[in-house]
Amino acid sequence: MSAAIPEIYNIHTPLLVAVDCIIFGFGEGELKLLAVKRQMDPARGEWSLMGGFLGERESLDEAAARILHQLTGLTDVYLDQLYAHSDPERDPGARVVSVSYYALIKISEQNQELAKEHDAVWFRLSELPLLIFDHNQMVDMALQLLRKQAKTKPVGFELLPEKFTLPQLQALYEAIYQKEIDRRNFRKSILSMDMLEKLDEKDKKGSRKGAWLYRFNLGKYESLRNRGFFFNISV
Amino acid sequence: MSAAIPEIYNIHTPLLVAVDCIIFGFGEGELKLLAVKRQMDPARGEWSLMGGFLGERESLDEAAARILHQLTGLTDVYLDQLYAHSDPERDPGARVVSVSYYALIKISEQNQELAKEHDAVWFRLSELPLLIFDHNQMVDMALQLLRKQAKTKPVGFELLPEKFTLPQLQALYEAIYQKEIDRRNFRKSILSMDMLEKLDEKDKKGSRKGAWLYRFNLGKYESLRNRGFFFNISV
Repeated sequence: MSAAIPEIYNIHTPLLVAVDCIIFGFGEGELKLLAVKRQMDPARGEWSLMGGFLGERESLDEAAARILHQLTGLTDVYLDQLYAHSDPERDPGARVVSVSYYALIKISEQNQELAKEHDAVWFRLSELPLLIFDHNQMVDMALQLLRKQAKTKPVGFELLPEKFTLPQLQALYEAIYQKEIDRRNFRKSILSMDMLEKLDEKDKKGSRKGAWLYRFNLGKYESLRNRGFFFNISV
Repeated sequence: MSAAIPEIYNIHTPLLVAVDCIIFGFGEGELKLLAVKRQMDPARGEWSLMGGFLGERESLDEAAARILHQLTGLTDVYLDQLYAHSDPERDPGARVVSVSYYALIKISEQNQELAKEHDAVWFRLSELPLLIFDHNQMVDMALQLLRKQAKTKPVGFELLPEKFTLPQLQALYEAIYQKEIDRRNFRKSILSMDMLEKLDEKDKKGSRKGAWLYRFNLGKYESLRNRGFFFNISV
């Protein structure tokens, strides 16, 4: 291909482009991040976001989905481009521009074998270790975006099992915003939006009386949105 | 440098990273985009965003500021990273990942000589020509972001002269959202935020009676924001 490249392109130095995935999950009432032990130099053995290099024939979206699948076995996951990180000194191995992606997954659906192969560990955000390079900064940016989006978009449901209770949903929001939320106001705010489907089924793990299970109704959300309604949770 | 690069980096193919700037301005009651005639192959002579390649020793932010300065002579301009565009086929010249930046400038402050050198032209958004590669898509994304931000952040003032009248400000918002805005509601919404400074000076170009000039008070905005107040204009 080189021969066909116009001269103006050739006088510029090529560099590597990587993708790093900030993978959030929710478990034991806590927001968590999936980190891996880096299996290559430099910084081998240190905690890192799951990442990889952009392939010759793929887009960044495709690379992010491939990398996420390698680690979790999951496809069709909420995945959003975050930012292109480009400090010339950010990676001591070489000049690498890294584009971060943020992913929201259901921990229970993750492939455990793949996680083991990559030495992957779920860290509570409050106990996050030092990650390599600028990865902690990427996590901070992703967390800010999650906090912004969870108020105005139904992204939180990506982190919950398909069927969940209102206490679980509230615990998720409390974990995202790191604050207690008034139970009555939260229920009112959520139920008044009319996009949860109450199931004929209870979760009895939390108490003998149990709590009703709900499901997020995407079709209803989309039809409400098309009529100019906005998702809005006050926390 | 090559010799020091760990092997894992070397098995991946380097590529070029570019920056493209979506430069918005406001004039004659219209939102405008600054486009240039491309001066290199492929697509020489076609309309394009102003762009360039990421240098070896600079970050993307620095590259975007450098490119904007080359074309406008301006520094200290509102400039924000938008998105990394990476379709393998997006640039027929070579594999180039382009990171788009969006800039808001005051047309009157632009260096006219530099604009001439680059065959730069301000196009009304309603009369935008076909741009090269995926540049029209970049403009669409930037416009969406501007529309989102102008409601909740004081970014609109970046497009106006330092001193402006309320009719000018309203015309700007009408141009951004492409709709008529009720004059009384708009004035009320703007003035109630208490972040404009009314000057002891009138603009008499629009009418004999003239319209009072105002100035955006950044210090006041920041102190209001620190007290939990949010910029919010309903359009």
